[in-house]
Amino acid sequence: MSDKKVDGPDSPDSVGWITPKRMRLASPDAPFRLESGETLAYMEVEYETYGEMSASGDNVILITHALSGDAHAAGWDKSATRKTVSGRLTPMKEGYSPPRGYRQKKPGWWDTMIGPGKPIDTNRHFVICSNVLGSCYGTTGPAAVNPATGKPYGLSFPAVMVEDWVRVQALLLDKLGVGELYAVIGGSLGGQQALEWALAFPDRVRKAIILAAAPELSTQGVAFNAVARYSIMNDPHFNGGDYYDAENTPEHGLAAARMLAHITYLSEAGMDSKFGRRFQENGKIRPDFSHEVEFAVEGYLNYQGRSFVERFDANSYLYIIRAMDYYDAAARWGGGDLTEAVRRIASETLVASFSSDWLYTPDGCQRLVHAICRTGKPVTYIDIPSQYGHDAFLVETERVGALLAGALKRR
Amino acid sequence: MSDKKVDGPDSPDSVGWITPKRMRLASPDAPFRLESGETLAYMEVEYETYGEMSASGDNVILITHALSGDAHAAGWDKSATRKTVSGRLTPMKEGYSPPRGYRQKKPGWWDTMIGPGKPIDTNRHFVICSNVLGSCYGTTGPAAVNPATGKPYGLSFPAVMVEDWVRVQALLLDKLGVGELYAVIGGSLGGQQALEWALAFPDRVRKAIILAAAPELSTQGVAFNAVARYSIMNDPHFNGGDYYDAENTPEHGLAAARMLAHITYLSEAGMDSKFGRRFQENGKIRPDFSHEVEFAVEGYLNYQGRSFVERFDANSYLYIIRAMDYYDAAARWGGGDLTEAVRRIASETLVASFSSDWLYTPDGCQRLVHAICRTGKPVTYIDIPSQYGHDAFLVETERVGALLAGALKRR
Repeated sequence: MSDKKVDGPDSPDSVGWITPKRMRLASPDAPFRLESGETLAYMEVEYETYGEMSASGDNVILITHALSGDAHAAGWDKSATRKTVSGRLTPMKEGYSPPRGYRQKKPGWWDTMIGPGKPIDTNRHFVICSNVLGSCYGTTGPAAVNPATGKPYGLSFPAVMVEDWVRVQALLLDKLGVGELYAVIGGSLGGQQALEWALAFPDRVRKAIILAAAPELSTQGVAFNAVARYSIMNDPHFNGGDYYDAENTPEHGLAAARMLAHITYLSEAGMDSKFGRRFQENGKIRPDFSHEVEFAVEGYLNYQGRSFVERFDANSYLYIIRAMDYYDAAARWGGGDLTEAVRRIASETLVASFSSDWLYTPDGCQRLVHAICRTGKPVTYIDIPSQYGHDAFLVETERVGALLAGALKRR
Repeated sequence: MSDKKVDGPDSPDSVGWITPKRMRLASPDAPFRLESGETLAYMEVEYETYGEMSASGDNVILITHALSGDAHAAGWDKSATRKTVSGRLTPMKEGYSPPRGYRQKKPGWWDTMIGPGKPIDTNRHFVICSNVLGSCYGTTGPAAVNPATGKPYGLSFPAVMVEDWVRVQALLLDKLGVGELYAVIGGSLGGQQALEWALAFPDRVRKAIILAAAPELSTQGVAFNAVARYSIMNDPHFNGGDYYDAENTPEHGLAAARMLAHITYLSEAGMDSKFGRRFQENGKIRPDFSHEVEFAVEGYLNYQGRSFVERFDANSYLYIIRAMDYYDAAARWGGGDLTEAVRRIASETLVASFSSDWLYTPDGCQRLVHAICRTGKPVTYIDIPSQYGHDAFLVETERVGALLAGALKRR
């Protein structure tokens, strides 16, 4: 994301200052039933909106976020007061969500794409982005207080799946008076939500735009998540997920998980051209013969790990990577047959992969495309050449912007 | 290594029962000076030999081992008494090496290649394999007692580099009365030692056989090692490397490092065909919605992590992966120019890569080959098609065996 253009809140193509909103979508009288069979008697969802809904409601775009994302997709968050936050998350009372003091005072994660005149044009579209269930960014998750015990859920929070996230988003749209979506757009785990929208609610989506996502995570992807999970759960401060009132959090396990994830977000070629085998200190040509940070790439990863633990909850990370492991469009909708599954799709589909992405590979994206082709339905597909690996869907702003602008121009 | 053929010690093509040997190669009067500038006043090296040296000494082959390997390349170890060892390594007195109670009672790591009539034929060759400096398999390393303090070295053990390992091996050969090596053969980090032999001692090597190794580790490889290092050093039981007398060792950090390494040893395609997205329990079609092991690939990795901490020392792991990071043949011998570096080579060179190896990629191996070509010297190169990834150099026994047998037939 290093190359992304940043507009100030007063820039004419910024959505400006925004205020995150919250919606209660479950109560003891109307609990939310999850895929796992468990129910939540309290559920609150954090979301943001940009632009205005048209009178006919035909201009609504839903943005679905990736693993570590949040509802803050565009503009500047008025509620954020600190640049980064040291210290722990404080669980909120009432079975709802923790406060968002750990929000960062910087533009939304897809601010390059969303705004007046931008590819996702808020002059024309009403744009909604909501935070997924299980996250630590405002929507109810493991840091929330379990009303049955008066203590944070921790690992007693029910499992969440991509299918749950999409059903929660559908509930939110119901409350907002949105029937059909003009488009749902997401990358990575957000792309899987866009796909799930087209599968679960074929009548409610006109255009599904799926970036850098496959119908399921690869074996290698599950393997990387397994190491992340091991690192977090075996951090002695993890304490079975019960650390919200403790002096220490499982920050080292979470940092290791994030460092590892970052390797999978970059391509080998991209990493090589950005860092190579350079030492961290400029001009140093001889190693220090130490086990501390020596190479530039180590410094980068350590920084990513350290900064992530300032803004993310380890339990939420566990829940979300498990959802990533579980999602399997073919198993869910086609009894294991992807072509059968995608017969459900009624929306226009646009799929984009990125040539050097090795987490959700072009091959994986193309399996989805081939399956849709086999049903005889049209599907637009492009493999965008990039050396930025999986990060490309956030970093290749020009190419992705042109792609989105074109796709959203057609009615 | 799962597919490797195992012969019993009485099989006619086994070297049978062997007894590891030790050689003192440094003393306070004749210390060993390392690349870092530091010295070791005590250094003991564990090694094994198979076959007999010819009268002229022209039949000696040195085998160089990879990251987690040891001197026990072939046959069955008489000194091993337990299959695996629970509990900690006990540092030895006298500034030398820890005992090898943690040796496993199973054939050597390259038993498929070394023996009477095997590709590395002990009827014809005298074969030597020694354990690298810094390891925990008999050669002096961080678990040894520092004679200056009477306590285990831990992180006060000096940094080791591939160049040090090769110079220690040369000292050992001096003591054994070996002048020129008929061949040096190694894979992975062992392949880098074989390359370093050809560079550092061009007059002492007739044939350098380099498998699955590049002139240096890639940026991505350094990145994976950075995560491993972070995991180990931030395990609260690591205690700055001073854990030999403690109740707990940094086993979770080491296990996470090993799990991660195993992902890099397998190819995505190989992992996919071996495990896919299958659940751990046979016939289970629905997840348990848990953060414990669910997928078969998770079970495999967790087992690899757990079993590794039974047999390896976390400090040794740190030292050896740092040697892996540091090694850079072009920087060491050519001022950064690989072609300049390889002008030193006088031995016949054979380089083999494996098509799905993404740790030491075919591209990386080919850079070495191209550099040798540019000097006008002959080099034999083959890219062996395999889905076993980096592990292929150990697993593709038929193809590697045929390659070695052919290369060692010529005088």
